[in-house]
Amino acid sequence: MAAVRPLATRKSDTLRMLATPAIDVWVATAAAAGVPYLVPLSLAWVDERVVIALEATSPTARNLAATREARLAVGPTRDVVMMDVVLDRTVSVDGDEALGTAYVAQADWDPRGLSGYVFLVLRPVRIQAWRESNEIPGRNLMRDGVWLIQA
Amino acid sequence: MAAVRPLATRKSDTLRMLATPAIDVWVATAAAAGVPYLVPLSLAWVDERVVIALEATSPTARNLAATREARLAVGPTRDVVMMDVVLDRTVSVDGDEALGTAYVAQADWDPRGLSGYVFLVLRPVRIQAWRESNEIPGRNLMRDGVWLIQA
Repeated sequence: MAAVRPLATRKSDTLRMLATPAIDVWVATAAAAGVPYLVPLSLAWVDERVVIALEATSPTARNLAATREARLAVGPTRDVVMMDVVLDRTVSVDGDEALGTAYVAQADWDPRGLSGYVFLVLRPVRIQAWRESNEIPGRNLMRDGVWLIQA
Repeated sequence: MAAVRPLATRKSDTLRMLATPAIDVWVATAAAAGVPYLVPLSLAWVDERVVIALEATSPTARNLAATREARLAVGPTRDVVMMDVVLDRTVSVDGDEALGTAYVAQADWDPRGLSGYVFLVLRPVRIQAWRESNEIPGRNLMRDGVWLIQA
């Protein structure tokens, strides 16, 4: 098992992972009745928000519209960034030019112009990062929307 | 983008992936009120069931006890096996010797003897497998607990 990373390293590793071109995110949501849903989607990290693009009628978009929360995972299972997020805003894929440009600059596909597609802007409330079991203590990087370390 | 795999290949790839030593599974569950949860756990594939081991008081175990369903993902985001599963049974980690032996033969840790840990045996109802968007059509391998192709 690799050595435990200090918090500052975990934060910089996390920010680097979130900015990786063509990276995907696991998006876990739930219907209000408690039915879980999970799907991988392309991610863009824009102004400390996770941006995803999807059909407004998809289960993930409908669940987020109803409950306004999701739990995200980025990275492989043994080098993971976990995020609890809340829905900040929903924008038509052609409704915010700067957002569309930022999304397309990181993701490896372009949803702009696709009928029925929306950007969901998700605000992290909690961020955790760990590799293996020895990194479970100290896994919290953000709590209540505030980074636990600066810089 | 790679060529679309025929259904029989997707099934054999899926079974091979599920039998991989020391492989992890993303487990998405929800509290009855609709709060999503997601965590990576070690997986064993035993008699066409997914077996996970965890603390009985963990959010995943509590959610499964309440709602009896989960959505699982195995593999990287662009070579994924997605499963909708129902809780078949919950067993103390020392309550079923054959199950414990099978779990430890595949996973890379041994939960037996750990106080408060249980095996959850999860029965797939739906299994899907795809790599990229060209494999989304024909992604269903199992529906209502029945494989769509034999052999």
